[in-house]
Amino acid sequence: MSERYDIAIVGSGPAGITAAINAKIRNKKIILFGYENLSNKLYLAPRIDNYVGFHGIRGKELAEKFKAHLDEMDIEITYERPDNIYAMGDYYAIMINGKLYEATALILATGIQFGKPFRGEAEFLGRGVGYCATCDAPLYKGKTVTIIGYNKESIEEANYVSELAEKVYFVPMMKEEYSLNHNIEVIQDKPVEIVGSTKVEKLVLKNSEIQSDGIFILRDSVPPDQLVPGLLVEDAHIKVNRDMETNLEGCYAAGDVTGKPYQYLKAMGEGQVAALNAVAYLERRKLNSDGVSNPTEGK
Amino acid sequence: MSERYDIAIVGSGPAGITAAINAKIRNKKIILFGYENLSNKLYLAPRIDNYVGFHGIRGKELAEKFKAHLDEMDIEITYERPDNIYAMGDYYAIMINGKLYEATALILATGIQFGKPFRGEAEFLGRGVGYCATCDAPLYKGKTVTIIGYNKESIEEANYVSELAEKVYFVPMMKEEYSLNHNIEVIQDKPVEIVGSTKVEKLVLKNSEIQSDGIFILRDSVPPDQLVPGLLVEDAHIKVNRDMETNLEGCYAAGDVTGKPYQYLKAMGEGQVAALNAVAYLERRKLNSDGVSNPTEGK
Repeated sequence: MSERYDIAIVGSGPAGITAAINAKIRNKKIILFGYENLSNKLYLAPRIDNYVGFHGIRGKELAEKFKAHLDEMDIEITYERPDNIYAMGDYYAIMINGKLYEATALILATGIQFGKPFRGEAEFLGRGVGYCATCDAPLYKGKTVTIIGYNKESIEEANYVSELAEKVYFVPMMKEEYSLNHNIEVIQDKPVEIVGSTKVEKLVLKNSEIQSDGIFILRDSVPPDQLVPGLLVEDAHIKVNRDMETNLEGCYAAGDVTGKPYQYLKAMGEGQVAALNAVAYLERRKLNSDGVSNPTEGK
Repeated sequence: MSERYDIAIVGSGPAGITAAINAKIRNKKIILFGYENLSNKLYLAPRIDNYVGFHGIRGKELAEKFKAHLDEMDIEITYERPDNIYAMGDYYAIMINGKLYEATALILATGIQFGKPFRGEAEFLGRGVGYCATCDAPLYKGKTVTIIGYNKESIEEANYVSELAEKVYFVPMMKEEYSLNHNIEVIQDKPVEIVGSTKVEKLVLKNSEIQSDGIFILRDSVPPDQLVPGLLVEDAHIKVNRDMETNLEGCYAAGDVTGKPYQYLKAMGEGQVAALNAVAYLERRKLNSDGVSNPTEGK
């Protein structure tokens, strides 16, 4: 059986780290999934004027101060990206490359993907278009798969898929270096549209086309209702109330993923509120499981 | 005619200053009402662990960094406290000691008063109990008034009232020094209860009683619906939605005054959201007054 965390926090941007800091101050056992540089958006910001107390700071510098804060509080980041998270009733099951993590409460601070989806992307989602290659790879045994990769993880996914699929194309969307298996064909071109009839048939790029049975688009964040099935999303953002509660009991959301404005302090305030309400949720559950009658506090 | 500000911000705690910084970045003409030390709650905090980037900082130090941020952005604080604010339809009228300020949008970041109201306070509010001595002083010409003073401003109010009232008692609740007119009697005792029949008759203190026609309680913050008549308050907090809109068009609220948790980053996130939505409100109004048809953006 997996170790059960009190709170799992997905995302190490401003919202996620603030949630982690506040949960840790309340003595909760947490796991924080994220990135070494915390958040690309933050890390790459040339100048930030509205993080109060640090007028005109560079994003990289601010990220380093945030990282130092985490270090001083012994908060570690787990450098993994959940593929899927399932609401199991009294806990959340977090799947990462076949590994399972368990947590009683969940805070989603996954940010938003910048840029528009490709033409045809929404239309063929689940009909050949996917966001997690390792999850769905078995479906493409002996077939042709195209991977549009925005990050380092997409390299690993492509390599993994190439062991099952007959043919893998990789369209790199990032500047980082990558090392791909030899049987993967790299296409240096700009994706434009996903085309098919009942299911995906090809990816149209600016200067070429790729016939493909499956197309995986591996961005830094996936649509939240794809990550957590059953989660209520409105206008591409997780629906929350002022307590940062989602429609799933014990699941909270914070930061850009809950909607505009996409701003650091807005995200951090929400991360704090999410964490404190997750802590209250844990306490209510503890009271109930201790057999203490607590009728007014039930959800 | 008074100068018309774009946005008036009431309160210089974490929520208010964040609102000011964000409004100023958007080139709005703002006026920020507050205190020299920004916020007593912040200033006196012995240690803050969850303002991300400054682990373990003293409140005073953090307040100084916040102040430096304001200075670098040329944001001034007006050291005055609005007595009453009226929604005039297309602007807000802010009354301070008989002076009038005008602003198109309003952000309330007044914080909450700590400590319980006195016994009888709510019961006799408007029937001899008040929160603004200078506003109501004319009612007490030739009568006896007691002032329970929590701050420096209450000294000024007591002195002002003493010119009209027959007799003024002053019950100091603060440690600061004060210099009162000679005809004011200082009572060093702890207020316990306000007593009367149809209206206030006396203030009962721990070791004494004061016969009084009027009792003014001058805390750092007044109930928000007393400050802004017509404002919707629920459970002693201003009712807001996720956009920090109150029930009054163009009026936003942020920070402790909107509800728990009473935390810095929560307050600052709300201050940011309030400011950005106030800016959007100003832009909508401008479009409308320019005669541009804009049917979908109306409130």
